[in-house]
Amino acid sequence: MDSELVFLPPLRRVAICGGTHGNELTGVHVVRERLREEQRKAEEDEEEDDVVSVACVLTNPRAVQQCRRYTETDLNRCFTRAILSSAVSDRTPYEIVRSQELNSLLGPKGSAQAVDLVCDLHNTTANMGLCVIAYSDSDWFCLHIFKEAYSLDSLGKHGFALEIGPQPHGVVRSNIYTFMKTAVELTLEWVRLFNSGTVFEGGSVEVYTMVSNIDYPRERHTHNIMAVIHPKLQDQDFCLLHPKDPMFQTFSGDTLRYKGPEPLYAFFINECAYYEKGIALSLARQRCVAIPTIQMKSGLQHRGEEGTSEEED
Amino acid sequence: MDSELVFLPPLRRVAICGGTHGNELTGVHVVRERLREEQRKAEEDEEEDDVVSVACVLTNPRAVQQCRRYTETDLNRCFTRAILSSAVSDRTPYEIVRSQELNSLLGPKGSAQAVDLVCDLHNTTANMGLCVIAYSDSDWFCLHIFKEAYSLDSLGKHGFALEIGPQPHGVVRSNIYTFMKTAVELTLEWVRLFNSGTVFEGGSVEVYTMVSNIDYPRERHTHNIMAVIHPKLQDQDFCLLHPKDPMFQTFSGDTLRYKGPEPLYAFFINECAYYEKGIALSLARQRCVAIPTIQMKSGLQHRGEEGTSEEED
Repeated sequence: MDSELVFLPPLRRVAICGGTHGNELTGVHVVRERLREEQRKAEEDEEEDDVVSVACVLTNPRAVQQCRRYTETDLNRCFTRAILSSAVSDRTPYEIVRSQELNSLLGPKGSAQAVDLVCDLHNTTANMGLCVIAYSDSDWFCLHIFKEAYSLDSLGKHGFALEIGPQPHGVVRSNIYTFMKTAVELTLEWVRLFNSGTVFEGGSVEVYTMVSNIDYPRERHTHNIMAVIHPKLQDQDFCLLHPKDPMFQTFSGDTLRYKGPEPLYAFFINECAYYEKGIALSLARQRCVAIPTIQMKSGLQHRGEEGTSEEED
Repeated sequence: MDSELVFLPPLRRVAICGGTHGNELTGVHVVRERLREEQRKAEEDEEEDDVVSVACVLTNPRAVQQCRRYTETDLNRCFTRAILSSAVSDRTPYEIVRSQELNSLLGPKGSAQAVDLVCDLHNTTANMGLCVIAYSDSDWFCLHIFKEAYSLDSLGKHGFALEIGPQPHGVVRSNIYTFMKTAVELTLEWVRLFNSGTVFEGGSVEVYTMVSNIDYPRERHTHNIMAVIHPKLQDQDFCLLHPKDPMFQTFSGDTLRYKGPEPLYAFFINECAYYEKGIALSLARQRCVAIPTIQMKSGLQHRGEEGTSEEED
C-alpha cells in the first residue's frame, strides 16, 4: 500500500473560513488578520501567489457581531442539499439565507466550480488540542495535510474543520490563536508544495471514528441536567474510557459510571454548545488508515490513474 | 486593634443567589441543588434550621433558560436606587422588572426588612480562583467570612459576590461546582456559628482595591479588538504587573507593554463578558485590612458598643 502512487488534481482555489459559529473567536480573528494582510499587500502592490488562490471568508458575520453561536439556527447544520436548494422568503432564518450565499460563493456544492479545499476554523471548550475533523477517511488531501501537521467544509471539493481547544466561547486566548494561525499557514504551505509538484510520501494516520454521543442525565420534566462530567474524565479527551470508569458526578456528589460494553475514546468532553444538542461527550474508535503517496496530476498523466477520493464529496 | 471587640446583630435571614448572569452555571446548579435538598427535607419533615433562615433564589430565570448573561440588560447593574424606584411599562427591559421583584423579595434595599446577608454566585473565564467581591473594606461580616474561607448583593444589609474561575460561561465543571458548593456551605456554617454566639478573633485580611480598567487596543472605526492578552499575562490573575511588562499581543504578533507608572495587581484578565464592556483586565492595589474581633450582639449589650459597619450599606 505504501508504494502506491495516486495522482490528484491541484488545489488551485482554497477558502479559509472563520466565524461559522460567531462566538468561536479564534477563526474570526485569524480570518480578519489575513484580510488585513491581503489589503496591505494590495496597497503595496505585492505580487499574488501564483500556485494557489486563497479566499478568506467571515461566514456568519451577523452571529459574529452578536458574539453568539448563531442568530436563528446553527449555520453549520445548513449545508445539506435540501436546505441549500430550499425556497427563501422573508421569514427564512438568516443562517439558511447565508448558507445559500456561501454555496454561491464557495460551491455550488458538488459542482466543478466549487473551490478545491475549504478549511473551516472552530473552537471548543473541550481539551481536544488541535483536531482535523473530516467526513471521509479516504480523502487523501485531508489525511495528508493532517499527517503533516474533522459542514461548511462540505461545500468545496475537499474540506475539513480545524477544531481547537480548550478555549471558552466569546474569548480569544493568545496561545490558541497562535496555534491556529500556524496550522492555517502550514496547511497553505502544504498546498503550495503540492501544487508545485512535491511528492508526499504515503504512510498511516491515526483516525478516531465517531461511534455514539452520550447525553447528560436529565430531569424528566424540566430537562435540566442532573450531573456534570466527572472530574476524572474532564479534560481527558482522546483518552480511553473503560467500562465502569467514572463518567458523571451528580450535583449531590454521586458517581455515575460508563456502562458501555467496550473501551472507547472520549472526545468533545463538556463542549459548551452541545448542552443544547444533548451531547455531554462523544465516543470513538481509533484505527490506523493507510494513505498512499500522492502527487499532483499534471496534464500528462492518464485519467485512469486518478485517485477516486476527490469525487466522493 | 486586634483586641477590639465589636458586637454585631445576628444574621437571621440569608439569601443564596445564582443565575444573576444566566450563563454562569455554577451558581445556577448550586441553587437548584439546594432547592432540591430543601424539598427533600420538607417531604421528609426534617426540622428547620433554628439559627438562620436561608432563601435560595434563581435570580434571572429567563436568562438562565436562554443560557445568556442577560436577555435585555445586565441585571447586575440594575440595583441602583434610581432603577429600583423607576416606573415600569410594557416596554421596560425584563431585567429592570426583575430587579424590582428581587428588591421586594430580598430588600427593600437599605430598609430594616432587607435580608441580613446576600451571597451572589458568579463565574469568570479569568483564572481568579475563588474571590470574595465586596464594595466595602469595613464590612466585618464579609471580611470575617472571607478570612475563614470582592450588585445584587447590595440589596441585603450585608452582601458579597463569590466569583470563581476559570470556567467557560455556559459550561459546568465538576471541580468548580464542588469548590463553590463547599464555599457556600462554609459561609452558612460561619453564619450559624456567629448566630450561636461564637467569638471570631480579629486579625488582618489581604484585600485588592480596584484602581482602573484597561481595554483592548481597538480599531478606530469598527471597534474590533486588535490584540489579545499577552501569553505571559494570561492566567496570571493577582500577580504583580510591572511597568514595561508584556500586556497584549497583536494579531500580527507584536508585543504591547504595560505603560503605567507603578506595579499593580492584574485581575479579571480576559473575562468573556467584559469584551463588550471594554475591559481586558482590571488593576488593583493590595493592602492589609485589620479587622476587629466580632461577636453577636445579644439583647444585653449596650447599643453604643455596636460596630458601625452594618449601617454603611
